[in-house]
Amino acid sequence: MRAFVMKTIGETGFADKPVPTDPGPNGAIVRTKVALVCTSDTHTVGGAIGERENLTLGHEAVGVVESLGSEVESVSVGDRVAVNAITPCYKCDNCVRGYTSQCTEMLGGWKFANVRDGVFAEYFVVNDAEANLARIPDGVPDEKAVYTCDMMSTGFAGAENARIPMGGTVAVFAQGPVGLMATLGSRMQGAGLVIAVESMPQRKELAREFGADEVVDFTETDAVEAIRELTDGEGVDSAIEALGAQATFEACVEATRPGGTISNVGYHGEGDYVKIPRLGWGVGMSDKTINTALCPGGKVRMKRLLRLLERGRVDPTPMTTHTFGFDKIETAFRMMKTKEDGIIKPLIRFD
Amino acid sequence: MRAFVMKTIGETGFADKPVPTDPGPNGAIVRTKVALVCTSDTHTVGGAIGERENLTLGHEAVGVVESLGSEVESVSVGDRVAVNAITPCYKCDNCVRGYTSQCTEMLGGWKFANVRDGVFAEYFVVNDAEANLARIPDGVPDEKAVYTCDMMSTGFAGAENARIPMGGTVAVFAQGPVGLMATLGSRMQGAGLVIAVESMPQRKELAREFGADEVVDFTETDAVEAIRELTDGEGVDSAIEALGAQATFEACVEATRPGGTISNVGYHGEGDYVKIPRLGWGVGMSDKTINTALCPGGKVRMKRLLRLLERGRVDPTPMTTHTFGFDKIETAFRMMKTKEDGIIKPLIRFD
Amino acid sequence: MRAFVMKTIGETGFADKPVPTDPGPNGAIVRTKVALVCTSDTHTVGGAIGERENLTLGHEAVGVVESLGSEVESVSVGDRVAVNAITPCYKCDNCVRGYTSQCTEMLGGWKFANVRDGVFAEYFVVNDAEANLARIPDGVPDEKAVYTCDMMSTGFAGAENARIPMGGTVAVFAQGPVGLMATLGSRMQGAGLVIAVESMPQRKELAREFGADEVVDFTETDAVEAIRELTDGEGVDSAIEALGAQATFEACVEATRPGGTISNVGYHGEGDYVKIPRLGWGVGMSDKTINTALCPGGKVRMKRLLRLLERGRVDPTPMTTHTFGFDKIETAFRMMKTKEDGIIKPLIRFD
Amino acid sequence: MRAFVMKTIGETGFADKPVPTDPGPNGAIVRTKVALVCTSDTHTVGGAIGERENLTLGHEAVGVVESLGSEVESVSVGDRVAVNAITPCYKCDNCVRGYTSQCTEMLGGWKFANVRDGVFAEYFVVNDAEANLARIPDGVPDEKAVYTCDMMSTGFAGAENARIPMGGTVAVFAQGPVGLMATLGSRMQGAGLVIAVESMPQRKELAREFGADEVVDFTETDAVEAIRELTDGEGVDSAIEALGAQATFEACVEATRPGGTISNVGYHGEGDYVKIPRLGWGVGMSDKTINTALCPGGKVRMKRLLRLLERGRVDPTPMTTHTFGFDKIETAFRMMKTKEDGIIKPLIRFD
Repeated sequence: MRAFVMKTIGETGFADKPVPTDPGPNGAIVRTKVALVCTSDTHTVGGAIGERENLTLGHEAVGVVESLGSEVESVSVGDRVAVNAITPCYKCDNCVRGYTSQCTEMLGGWKFANVRDGVFAEYFVVNDAEANLARIPDGVPDEKAVYTCDMMSTGFAGAENARIPMGGTVAVFAQGPVGLMATLGSRMQGAGLVIAVESMPQRKELAREFGADEVVDFTETDAVEAIRELTDGEGVDSAIEALGAQATFEACVEATRPGGTISNVGYHGEGDYVKIPRLGWGVGMSDKTINTALCPGGKVRMKRLLRLLERGRVDPTPMTTHTFGFDKIETAFRMMKTKEDGIIKPLIRFD
Repeated sequence: MRAFVMKTIGETGFADKPVPTDPGPNGAIVRTKVALVCTSDTHTVGGAIGERENLTLGHEAVGVVESLGSEVESVSVGDRVAVNAITPCYKCDNCVRGYTSQCTEMLGGWKFANVRDGVFAEYFVVNDAEANLARIPDGVPDEKAVYTCDMMSTGFAGAENARIPMGGTVAVFAQGPVGLMATLGSRMQGAGLVIAVESMPQRKELAREFGADEVVDFTETDAVEAIRELTDGEGVDSAIEALGAQATFEACVEATRPGGTISNVGYHGEGDYVKIPRLGWGVGMSDKTINTALCPGGKVRMKRLLRLLERGRVDPTPMTTHTFGFDKIETAFRMMKTKEDGIIKPLIRFD
Repeated sequence: MRAFVMKTIGETGFADKPVPTDPGPNGAIVRTKVALVCTSDTHTVGGAIGERENLTLGHEAVGVVESLGSEVESVSVGDRVAVNAITPCYKCDNCVRGYTSQCTEMLGGWKFANVRDGVFAEYFVVNDAEANLARIPDGVPDEKAVYTCDMMSTGFAGAENARIPMGGTVAVFAQGPVGLMATLGSRMQGAGLVIAVESMPQRKELAREFGADEVVDFTETDAVEAIRELTDGEGVDSAIEALGAQATFEACVEATRPGGTISNVGYHGEGDYVKIPRLGWGVGMSDKTINTALCPGGKVRMKRLLRLLERGRVDPTPMTTHTFGFDKIETAFRMMKTKEDGIIKPLIRFD
Repeated sequence: MRAFVMKTIGETGFADKPVPTDPGPNGAIVRTKVALVCTSDTHTVGGAIGERENLTLGHEAVGVVESLGSEVESVSVGDRVAVNAITPCYKCDNCVRGYTSQCTEMLGGWKFANVRDGVFAEYFVVNDAEANLARIPDGVPDEKAVYTCDMMSTGFAGAENARIPMGGTVAVFAQGPVGLMATLGSRMQGAGLVIAVESMPQRKELAREFGADEVVDFTETDAVEAIRELTDGEGVDSAIEALGAQATFEACVEATRPGGTISNVGYHGEGDYVKIPRLGWGVGMSDKTINTALCPGGKVRMKRLLRLLERGRVDPTPMTTHTFGFDKIETAFRMMKTKEDGIIKPLIRFD
């Protein structure tokens, strides 16, 4: 079968790999239907997690169950299923403690296109399938369902961890796909005022579409100042970091009122340190809390996210700015790196 | 000034009372603009809290600050203000512990039309005004703002205490004004499926308007059975009791899945006991939690609820089925007792 | 091998069963070393969970790993291990939601001597062993370790769920082995005043030994009154129900102050309802919370409980009032039913 | 009356001030009995909060009520009382939100020897006394009670915010008086393994006395390495920062396992930033949480801490290494700055 792989650091391409046939007692094999390219795929190829050889890329996909291990009972061959980017084992210490994204070790729940082949192939293998596979409801098309794999789960987690009081105020820094879902998630958590921070015109527009009451363009004004003005000088109850940069992280701490919460979902890829502004943090005594998260996985999370699609609460498809066949994935991949043509998420079709 | 009072158990009428002039160092005097009649006012007159003599009724009103105590700084004379039905002192043990609705003693945060004169008068006095008064934003009319005093605060508390997971399932039992706000509140807390239980046609319709995905009519079907069917046999993550009756409380426990939450906001007015079904409760080992609440008050709560009105998140006015001048309040009061003419909430105008 | 079984409702005895040889890919076989008899074993024989035929009894035991399934890696053959009374699968919906005691269905985490053979046999089989088996540290003898299987886990859960504020007040109703561990657990959660409610002299004495500051004998005084007096009329922050009876449950609700928590760990075996006193519950508006729990299991819980033994925090062995060889288990079982001779927990030796 | 004041930055001395006579309607005047000097007093004199003129120093004291405002009811003239270092107003937005240490503005709950005269004088004035004064139980001597004002409240808050699982592991960085109380507090929260990090011999010894299982001397070994070894390579569930330094904060993040909690109670006095190690923080995706706190105040907190003294749970007096009359406070103050003679806390007597 064809697989789109990281050949080595900095190099991608198609490879021919054998169709998987043995899922093991607890695994499953899925035939890929649609997938999304993620910016983190480009980080991986750039060397963020070190060297890999012919590793199949991709961690956002839905498909059809091709075969199941002997111990897997809750889905059937032929079911249309979604699987999260994070596939915990659900039996190691960290999983049993409840921190499934940290399966076995820190960030270890992330297995696809990291420690095992990813989903950009005609078939992919899912570990611990009983806990990780969710059937997609009939009314939910693949093109929507695929957003549950990472974008909705991660972005919403940003909002959930932000502990937004009903009617409270929240600032979401950066309106890429995760930030946009954090904006929408904040609305869905009952925020009374959602302030999106972004400078790119298309993303500013999408931010409003997904529920931002106010959009602050940090190229035109000081974001922290603007947030304070919009909140009668108080700062926000909660700030969500959806970029992974020193400037936005720092602004999150500054813009949050005492007792508030900074919820980080951005991937911080650079430097030895991410720095907390000492005075904005109240010299360590401000009752401000800094939370972090890696995309929550597992079949229950997936079912709940799919229910939001099924019941019409959420339509993430305005983020699908481009669509490609699998044979054109290299173009999608390149565009995701350059962010050209206003790309947000490119959808890949496998049939 | 004219005040609408409970003369004695079972008897209401107008009384002439002196205009209040001394708010004390921590109090405030407010000139009433609009008010809402609550079913609990009729319970009070019926004897629910014992005998009272010429007690001014009412606990839902907005108005204009007429005078302020020497220690009150955060609002000014002439400000249009909202005050919650619950007005805690914020300095007794229970308040300092954080349970302000239980000010001084159980349910003691409820002072208006209970231990002091209520709001159905041309002027009313607010205790501990610094902590209890919130300025109404310019864009929010009195007719909306008055819903923050009780209906929105209580109904939303039902949803907040229900600990609904993002995309989770919730059943709201009874769709009176508190139940309707619990339905809306459940949507605003991220529920993926909101099931309203109700039999009156107008309330069923309003339930859908306020966000119910499904409406179960318990006169046509067994509500618990219907909820199980709508949730693939699992039961709901959360159930909200918004009536205060044995049958609905019991159904809440039965309809909730293990590990789920039953959130009670209904006032239970009868019998020595409210009974938990032993088996539905998993013989006391089901990880089900039963929460309770009395309308959360205080100026921060009010500001957040007012923000939801200001930002257009919530429009409670479809619940205002009737409007009366203050001189006709007796009619409103009688209708609230009989529930005739499909009444949900009658609004009273004081000017 | 010999197994001590429930032959049918009301009848126990020894049976000869084949030594288990195939643990399946995810299971383990353990050679039993010591066990404890639980009152709930006698309930089972009495018919509490319905008819069973030749079901091996017992759910509290430690032993040595005899063989392991192919997928089990975290313990080795020959390891001395503890396994909780509750053995969740860690992959069904309820487990993945985090409610592992409710595995698959309400109370479904309880498998030993319920839906599969228990531990009163020379060997027993553990399902999903990777998530359920914990190695016993060298310094911890079997006689202590066996208390982690149920008594410590359940009793401490009673205290943990009680949400006791640091320096707060707690009442623990009934001082059987679970209640005694709830008393100790309350001390370990930072309670400033622990009030044990009990009438049997030996248990009253043990209650003090395990950390009760005050012991209230409900045969000599009204327990709720006494608790109010000991708390300046306030009632306790938290009450723990460790018996499973209407009188104690009701007293828990009455004795708890507004905003406090009632934590139920007692098994309620009788009647259609467990009844909440309506007024003591503040007509459903007192901010009182009622929690429930079934013995938390899983290897991480076990490791933490074993650590408390290893570090000398806890010595549960004063509860071991009697010791028997496996051949005399019938005597232990009978005594556990009659509670004669001041029995708290009988320890059974298998070698 | 005599008052020990900060004359200007870098200069202390006695001043003669009028005895306060008017507490205002909500205040109280207290005659000082005993006090403790805090390292933060020396920071204040050093300029940490800017210039002050003849500001009375000190925020840890107990005394006797001399007079009360008209609105204060819960204590009486002549009562022996404790008041926390933090004295919130309990009516501003932040207080009403529940973040009383952040009264009015960030860290604004800290008023004594900051925005109003402190307690190192023959009399001192307490704002909002109804919410802030707690009667000292008869059996609790002043010399113990005075530790509730800051050391116990702050140190225990470090442990409470650390969210230590029952039987979990915790590391406490630095064993000054706050760190020692965090060590004790960790034991009282049910920790199974408490690791104290400290190098000064006397403090290492006190750490063991207050409940540390292991003491790591960072001058002899790498603290993070040592903590990992003591926890089977996992790291601790919780780390408490009780110093306020980059090195210890950083070690806290590194030593904490994924999903764990870093609880900061140290005052960070230097630099523009407090830096999070990026990789140890899991690039912002490790599910690690960073909490902060400023000494929780209010009468309920004080009552609970006093109860722990009354019931013999806690004896903080081993920290009182030196005692002085008020006339010798300058010596105490100097020693607290130099930390000479193994000083931990100097007690000051006013009679």
